[in-house]
Amino acid sequence: MSAELDVVCIGNALVDILAHGDDTLLERLGSQKGTMHMVDAARAEEVYAAMGAAAEASGGSAANTAAGIASFGGNAAYIGRVADDTFGHVFTHDLRAVGVRFDAPPASNGQPTGRCLVIVTPDAQRTMYTFLGAASELDPGLVDETLVSAAQVTFLEGYLWDQPPAKEAIRRAASGAHGAGRRVALTLSDPFCVERHRDEFLELVEHEIDVLFANEQEIRLLYEVDNFDDALQHVRGHCEIAALTRGARGSVIVAGDEVHVIDPAPVQVVDTTGAGDLYAAGFLYGLTHGHDLATAGRLGSLAASEVISHIAARPEVDLAQLARPLL
Amino acid sequence: MSAELDVVCIGNALVDILAHGDDTLLERLGSQKGTMHMVDAARAEEVYAAMGAAAEASGGSAANTAAGIASFGGNAAYIGRVADDTFGHVFTHDLRAVGVRFDAPPASNGQPTGRCLVIVTPDAQRTMYTFLGAASELDPGLVDETLVSAAQVTFLEGYLWDQPPAKEAIRRAASGAHGAGRRVALTLSDPFCVERHRDEFLELVEHEIDVLFANEQEIRLLYEVDNFDDALQHVRGHCEIAALTRGARGSVIVAGDEVHVIDPAPVQVVDTTGAGDLYAAGFLYGLTHGHDLATAGRLGSLAASEVISHIAARPEVDLAQLARPLL
Repeated sequence: MSAELDVVCIGNALVDILAHGDDTLLERLGSQKGTMHMVDAARAEEVYAAMGAAAEASGGSAANTAAGIASFGGNAAYIGRVADDTFGHVFTHDLRAVGVRFDAPPASNGQPTGRCLVIVTPDAQRTMYTFLGAASELDPGLVDETLVSAAQVTFLEGYLWDQPPAKEAIRRAASGAHGAGRRVALTLSDPFCVERHRDEFLELVEHEIDVLFANEQEIRLLYEVDNFDDALQHVRGHCEIAALTRGARGSVIVAGDEVHVIDPAPVQVVDTTGAGDLYAAGFLYGLTHGHDLATAGRLGSLAASEVISHIAARPEVDLAQLARPLL
Repeated sequence: MSAELDVVCIGNALVDILAHGDDTLLERLGSQKGTMHMVDAARAEEVYAAMGAAAEASGGSAANTAAGIASFGGNAAYIGRVADDTFGHVFTHDLRAVGVRFDAPPASNGQPTGRCLVIVTPDAQRTMYTFLGAASELDPGLVDETLVSAAQVTFLEGYLWDQPPAKEAIRRAASGAHGAGRRVALTLSDPFCVERHRDEFLELVEHEIDVLFANEQEIRLLYEVDNFDDALQHVRGHCEIAALTRGARGSVIVAGDEVHVIDPAPVQVVDTTGAGDLYAAGFLYGLTHGHDLATAGRLGSLAASEVISHIAARPEVDLAQLARPLL
């Protein structure tokens, strides 16, 4: 069945608010460095008041992936929820401006558009505080079945499991996609996210997911194993395709008997934010454009290397042009 | 008379919305490259819809200067108008977070916080579209006389002349400052701004302004002369102090018989936005901290060189620390 869309990405729609800060600030906020904290509106205000001067840019993990696919020249859509407010307009503008289809109506629960407050310490680590706001209203009605059945791949971010109403929406998206003969992909998102939702993720990976993205720490936590190879042997039996990223060690793609070990693209690392999101973008672009798994993995590495060479979590150059030597 | 404040800066409060774009986009928008256009809400929407994915950061010329003075460790306040909306909160947060006093109440005219849409072309030129919004309600009542008489210098941006109600506010600020035995400083802001308000600026410079900031093109346009030295001879008779910036040629400071020719600080130029704002910050910090005019000029060059080494229009490092070898 031919598809109108390459990928529909479903996730928490967030605007990033980014400031530099030192360890003293994190201590004052009582926060563990390098982790993502889910916060309510009051705590978000408290953190923002304590933060230095900031810059704002659209973010959200799956939205970054959608923007990356569009930058490769792919045909991507996004499902997620913003409010009818300034940050909602900014988020919508920034996705549409890069060619991502985004038609979900603004949330009606009265909450403002979600945001992710990011404090970057001098050691280049990021400590994040996510206030979901309107994103928390991703109910089943929002999953456009026409969109899901029109896309070769429906891509879900693990962070969605942090908002209970989204689970039904996700099940509906997965069954809609499978009913139309399409694939369902998932990223485990974050080690803490795996710890929070391990049992559900395991069941999902066994029964619903065709393409799994995870980094080394996430996949080891999922299977509660101490080394990468053990995790690799586990996932091999469950998903059609697993793309496992290992930072500076590159990535490993496993699909039944087929295994590829992909080197990372050389890069001067400035900020690792968005690495996983953009790896998924490159991989999914490759997968939906008839490329073999090794090429898809190389496109993933390429996109990840671009996004970690600068502060922003979305590509700053045309990935289609960057990828030309590989295709 | 001792002063509680070093400088109070008065200007148009704006949030910058910055995107990359090519010449085709400017042609489609019918815009002259490298200039600042004043636009209404509808035109701002039209330009935003045509722009690519963007990033947001607090801006506004005099607000950038205030942030720079604070970064040197100076005591700065800001007067300008935002609305009680998301961008207004962002603008307020970003000034207060760096230690600038900013207490003006949000505007009540129903307009949203002002914004400056910026399209950066591959040749690093900036084409800007300013929608003043709430900033256009800078009425005389907003000029806090306690603040003005408490500051060693009241600093005005030339852009204020683009909003007629602000003129009375400016006159009030200038007479309040002079009445308290303080100095009044002005930046000419922009060559087109000088063309729009040349007669008023001339009168102001002759009668009200103690410290004038201008770049070469602005000061030549003000006196309608072809070369820099002619402009220098003109301004010498009018202002107590004039600090004239010449880009890569450095700056010239003239105060009666005293003249200093200051070299620029060495730098790899990434984006010249904010150069004038930060030159003024360094100079005013020096002037209000008992440094001689040559040192003030060198502090201006230093701050300008820092801000043009990156994209943002406000300093990214602690200017007090950067300035230590000079003081």
